Amino acid sequence: MIFSSKLIEDAVQEFSRLPGIGKKTALRMVLQLLKMEKGEVDEFTGAVSRMRHGIKFCSQCYNVSDSDVCVLCVNPGRNRNQVCIVESIRDVIAIESTQQYSGLYHVLGGILSPLDGIGPSQLNIATLHDRVRNNGITELIMALSPTIEGDTTVYYIARQLKDLDVSITTIARGIAFGGELEYADEMTLAKSIARRQPIENYVSMK
Amino acid sequence: MIFSSKLIEDAVQEFSRLPGIGKKTALRMVLQLLKMEKGEVDEFTGAVSRMRHGIKFCSQCYNVSDSDVCVLCVNPGRNRNQVCIVESIRDVIAIESTQQYSGLYHVLGGILSPLDGIGPSQLNIATLHDRVRNNGITELIMALSPTIEGDTTVYYIARQLKDLDVSITTIARGIAFGGELEYADEMTLAKSIARRQPIENYVSMK
Repeated sequence: MIFSSKLIEDAVQEFSRLPGIGKKTALRMVLQLLKMEKGEVDEFTGAVSRMRHGIKFCSQCYNVSDSDVCVLCVNPGRNRNQVCIVESIRDVIAIESTQQYSGLYHVLGGILSPLDGIGPSQLNIATLHDRVRNNGITELIMALSPTIEGDTTVYYIARQLKDLDVSITTIARGIAFGGELEYADEMTLAKSIARRQPIENYVSMK
Repeated sequence: MIFSSKLIEDAVQEFSRLPGIGKKTALRMVLQLLKMEKGEVDEFTGAVSRMRHGIKFCSQCYNVSDSDVCVLCVNPGRNRNQVCIVESIRDVIAIESTQQYSGLYHVLGGILSPLDGIGPSQLNIATLHDRVRNNGITELIMALSPTIEGDTTVYYIARQLKDLDVSITTIARGIAFGGELEYADEMTLAKSIARRQPIENYVSMK
């Protein structure tokens, strides 16, 4: 692509560094910004800049936060005995958006993946033992990816905490609501038969 | 989507104002920016801000420009007798990227569309007569959309300039290279038969 303006070219270049954004999509965004009022563009760049410079990570759960401790951890209405262990802040947003979970979180910042050089020391695992012991946490809900790396991480954490009196659960796997049986993979289908539920549970989930 | 950080929420909100960007895509971009170094994010916001505040429109052809007259209009190597009339700066980028055109441009900033309230006074048409008369322009190449609005604009401009000795051409329409006949619409196919070319022209285009 040949631009007759360095200013446009630079902006397109910066946008195309974002994931899934090619040169053409980047140009469409830049031309849209060019149509917007200067004040609106200042709001755009201001929000991005404030976000990157102002963001903190919660000292308790490692979720993104606008202050030292995140709004979830300081909320007295949350169940402080339950902690959901997730890989990333994206998962916190996904679970929060269901509005069905009222406990706390613990963001690992990744999962164990020896092939990618990610060991326990790269993740927020070391503090988990103290957090569970000192805060009266009775249940840890593992909400990690159903992959070998995810399962490895679950087993690693369970082993680290085996001296503590805490119940460890994982989120339910099975056929998605609205999913059709014939398109489910064999492993998922097999597990969903093996872990079948009494009909009362099904009705109460509705 | 429920965010536990106002900073993240604001940035996602700003990104989702861009065309074709939903909340999920916006979040993916924001999380990518969060992973980048602060300095890299400053380069991103800086490029966007400099672009919006620094951009000018060329006083001769209305193309975007970093100075009062654009790099195409000041380039002594361009053919100053040929002017290609386009709807937007996006079209200038598309034609420049072919590296096959060496004349100048005239960016209308839209096409005539009475239904959308776009008349000649909203477009950069008024200056075209003077530009052609005073600059020794011998050919105007119309490169507008093959729609009713595009054709109307072509006819309007041709009528405005009928007292001048300038040749007006339009870019060729026909079956795209690599396009299959059976998928071409009837109008395009009919026109491409009516405007068939001697085989020598075809060979020389290769």
